[in-house]
Amino acid sequence: MTTRAEALEALARCSNAGRWGADDQLGTLNLITPDKRRRAARLVREGVCVSLGGDIDTVQRPLNPHPARHLMHLERDLPDTLHDSIALDVHGVGTHLDAVGHVYVDGIGYNGRRQDEVVTNDGLLANGICAMREGIFTRGVLLDVAAAAEVHWLEADRTVTAADLRSAETLAGVDVEPGDAVFVHTGLERRAAPGDPADLVARAGLGLDAVYWLRDRDIAVYSGDCVERLPISGPVLPLPLHQIGIAAMGLALLDWPRLTGLLAACAHYGRAEFLLTVAPLRIPGGTGSPVNPVATF
Amino acid sequence: MTTRAEALEALARCSNAGRWGADDQLGTLNLITPDKRRRAARLVREGVCVSLGGDIDTVQRPLNPHPARHLMHLERDLPDTLHDSIALDVHGVGTHLDAVGHVYVDGIGYNGRRQDEVVTNDGLLANGICAMREGIFTRGVLLDVAAAAEVHWLEADRTVTAADLRSAETLAGVDVEPGDAVFVHTGLERRAAPGDPADLVARAGLGLDAVYWLRDRDIAVYSGDCVERLPISGPVLPLPLHQIGIAAMGLALLDWPRLTGLLAACAHYGRAEFLLTVAPLRIPGGTGSPVNPVATF
Amino acid sequence: MTTRAEALEALARCSNAGRWGADDQLGTLNLITPDKRRRAARLVREGVCVSLGGDIDTVQRPLNPHPARHLMHLERDLPDTLHDSIALDVHGVGTHLDAVGHVYVDGIGYNGRRQDEVVTNDGLLANGICAMREGIFTRGVLLDVAAAAEVHWLEADRTVTAADLRSAETLAGVDVEPGDAVFVHTGLERRAAPGDPADLVARAGLGLDAVYWLRDRDIAVYSGDCVERLPISGPVLPLPLHQIGIAAMGLALLDWPRLTGLLAACAHYGRAEFLLTVAPLRIPGGTGSPVNPVATF
Amino acid sequence: MTTRAEALEALARCSNAGRWGADDQLGTLNLITPDKRRRAARLVREGVCVSLGGDIDTVQRPLNPHPARHLMHLERDLPDTLHDSIALDVHGVGTHLDAVGHVYVDGIGYNGRRQDEVVTNDGLLANGICAMREGIFTRGVLLDVAAAAEVHWLEADRTVTAADLRSAETLAGVDVEPGDAVFVHTGLERRAAPGDPADLVARAGLGLDAVYWLRDRDIAVYSGDCVERLPISGPVLPLPLHQIGIAAMGLALLDWPRLTGLLAACAHYGRAEFLLTVAPLRIPGGTGSPVNPVATF
Repeated sequence: MTTRAEALEALARCSNAGRWGADDQLGTLNLITPDKRRRAARLVREGVCVSLGGDIDTVQRPLNPHPARHLMHLERDLPDTLHDSIALDVHGVGTHLDAVGHVYVDGIGYNGRRQDEVVTNDGLLANGICAMREGIFTRGVLLDVAAAAEVHWLEADRTVTAADLRSAETLAGVDVEPGDAVFVHTGLERRAAPGDPADLVARAGLGLDAVYWLRDRDIAVYSGDCVERLPISGPVLPLPLHQIGIAAMGLALLDWPRLTGLLAACAHYGRAEFLLTVAPLRIPGGTGSPVNPVATF
Repeated sequence: MTTRAEALEALARCSNAGRWGADDQLGTLNLITPDKRRRAARLVREGVCVSLGGDIDTVQRPLNPHPARHLMHLERDLPDTLHDSIALDVHGVGTHLDAVGHVYVDGIGYNGRRQDEVVTNDGLLANGICAMREGIFTRGVLLDVAAAAEVHWLEADRTVTAADLRSAETLAGVDVEPGDAVFVHTGLERRAAPGDPADLVARAGLGLDAVYWLRDRDIAVYSGDCVERLPISGPVLPLPLHQIGIAAMGLALLDWPRLTGLLAACAHYGRAEFLLTVAPLRIPGGTGSPVNPVATF
Repeated sequence: MTTRAEALEALARCSNAGRWGADDQLGTLNLITPDKRRRAARLVREGVCVSLGGDIDTVQRPLNPHPARHLMHLERDLPDTLHDSIALDVHGVGTHLDAVGHVYVDGIGYNGRRQDEVVTNDGLLANGICAMREGIFTRGVLLDVAAAAEVHWLEADRTVTAADLRSAETLAGVDVEPGDAVFVHTGLERRAAPGDPADLVARAGLGLDAVYWLRDRDIAVYSGDCVERLPISGPVLPLPLHQIGIAAMGLALLDWPRLTGLLAACAHYGRAEFLLTVAPLRIPGGTGSPVNPVATF
Repeated sequence: MTTRAEALEALARCSNAGRWGADDQLGTLNLITPDKRRRAARLVREGVCVSLGGDIDTVQRPLNPHPARHLMHLERDLPDTLHDSIALDVHGVGTHLDAVGHVYVDGIGYNGRRQDEVVTNDGLLANGICAMREGIFTRGVLLDVAAAAEVHWLEADRTVTAADLRSAETLAGVDVEPGDAVFVHTGLERRAAPGDPADLVARAGLGLDAVYWLRDRDIAVYSGDCVERLPISGPVLPLPLHQIGIAAMGLALLDWPRLTGLLAACAHYGRAEFLLTVAPLRIPGGTGSPVNPVATF
């Protein structure tokens, strides 16, 4: 993406503004219909749940400057009970679900809402995480881009394209459908041998045509170990998944999932589809929530 | 409950120590088998999700002395995005799932673990919330004790008995089975007219024989607007659900749910059973986690 | 103040930009010279210290939406010691010292520094509270405007003028000199009968000519129970003490002091001057610090 | 110290219980009399202030597992002002003043107060930091033990003795008197070449006879880069400065000062005595407070 004109065109091409009414705050989660949920529930065959969340990270790192703070409390009134508190950055390195009001382009967010009109000191007046309070219940599909590309991991300077996603779809043996949640795997965890994945700043990311693919296939939820290409390049739409996906499409982005268990389960059960359940904390005005997504096979 | 001998007998009667092996940290969630999950998934008929969580409470009250602190962050690097953080007491008035290591009697917790051996400044070495990382996926059953008693709400000096639960079960038209999650409704929210439910300190609670019933029916998850009778009475087992349920049985307690939507959905769909999904945040060493449980019909 | 031209003139009239060099971050604290400190030390005659700070406020109120959070910690390693933590908003209702980088007008702060150049996600690159790390050590003077006006308290719609300050100076029997810290008393604590001072939003404030007086007299530190008139009126320079005092003059503002003990001590010792010591916490990049100022007689 | 009998004798020998009345919560700060303050004020000759506090540490380290969290806030109502918050562990690696209620031996703290009677979930009912609300204003004396021992730094296995303190006193050319604040320098900062002082766990500490010396000389405030010998040795009184000093004597311990500036100033001005001012935040029930102590020459 090089020009501003192209950026505007991309935003317009993908925008879901008005698609579900002027009042909508739910974005692509509208694509998860009751029928979609019923069919997703039928994917539960083995009756096994797999967490897709990471442990809350209390270690300070370059990508985690404000680590979560977990404190055990002194308890005098009820000494036979233990109490604690947790403080965390919602959009830190932990697994979290972004609200559609998390991102803006030129001050405009999902469904045409202006940043300066919806943001207060206390949070979002609209497009906040509470709009997603009923949670996500849909089919999840693993798109193993690394496996489809026959590599252990994608190098950091790689851009994931629509063709990559299609190849992974073919490998999965599943036709991705409207309302699905896709989990893209590029092998980032395998690159992390010497350190922690959280420290790997440079990384592959989704390209513009991959975002178009998400829009054209009416994906409801995007997740995976590949989000934006880092370090970012260029001043125009450097973060296409956030800027086009969240701000224009209203895409539900499930960031920083942990895919290890999912890969193992898909291999074990011989299928790439499963029931996905995610339920954000109801943080009034929140721009997202820490979550522990679960795949059920 | 009046004597210490009776208390010890009650603990012994209900204990699940050793039932699932000396290493077990999962407690009654072991009762949720793969087959149980498969059958629970089949309860999804209308394809509708209902949140059972309350909004995170940022208002200071008598029962919420440390309200959650939600802060919007200054963001200079990426001004078109919004960031925030949240700090909260895990066992405050918000909807949360207790770890089995939350409670002890005479220093002994679930599966015979000693409080002084498993607790550190950083949290639990065993019986922590991460043991429940794969979440809860089972049948939920609404037991409307208030409706069965033909009252709008139970008075604060009331103890909910096993007979109450059986009456509610009959009214529900559902046979409660091992591995189920029960949601007891006593109408607490209706008593709250002048103030907030959180301010209603005095309240009905489960009696000892009701806890026995939970044990005898092999309930996996207890939830509801009725937990312990407050204010507590007597020095011996004043908190039977916590002391016998959590410490002896290893019962998964889902505290402070919001039942309004559940009641409406059960009435609307004409049934008291549904799929329950709950996924605690993976807080290492944590004694519980804030959650947003979801009922799917 | 009605017009923007007048506002610009007021800012220019009071600006200390460049006065102590282009690199200066200390503002009016430069007016406290070694000789000034020596003379201030000689004010210690009775050898009595009086705190001018309030208790850290852990109660949520309209003016204190995020009360301080004081938590006692579980301590297993050293059970014979107690540990705790404190979290607080620097510019909340507690007694605090503002850094000169706390305020900007049209994006310009003290000594001509641009807000967008000195502010990062982690705090101030210049004009932060650490510039004041050596603390304040100077003469303090009580200016009892209420007493001079022969009222118990100034009404909320009152503006404190230069004439008010001069009358109070006369009453004090002290000639205010360059480098002094002035403590203005308008009797706000007496208006607070039904509630807490913190809840009294409407209040008297300094007028423009009073700010001029601070500048003309080369006051180093301003403090008192009278800061800005609230609710604010008009779009142009609604907060003259902050906008002209801090942003243009680089005035050290010691906000939310507690004057009760000071009034009693001044009455008891029969003088309105004393040694003032204040030492901000060294918060890197901080826009201020909670403090406990002390008057020594 | 090897036997429990000796420990009890040491505690009895140094105890100040009852010395200033049964209600006293101030401990050795009682030794700072009005006359002491007057004379301390006269030490201000050059009129120069030197901070003895360190920067608040936001970096996670072995000795700082919960680093301070400094957050800049989004500010929409007053965009020309900056707001922030700070959260910190009071007894972390930052410069702080301990309350006398911070430490207990066999459950007994300063002035015979029982830990189980004065501690609540919200903090101390007595012996808390607010007892010191009027701050510390006294003579400070630098005791350069390293210089007196003619070494750059004391090795980690060294115990500082009363003889060391006397030698340093001689070198200082100052007679330490009742009510003084002593600052012991052992050169810890010079040992820190490869890392940070905060990471140097192993370190020299005060021995029992040095604590006796503090008691016999009626020191009001102890500070320095030498506190307890680490790692601790033995089960009986492993932390003599805390256990005898704070719990028995009620000594004001000013922990984690930064001495670099003090050393330079003492060398520059050719004297080891100065005015010390310290003012803890008024944290109700707090076991201590972060502070920025100041030496004025």
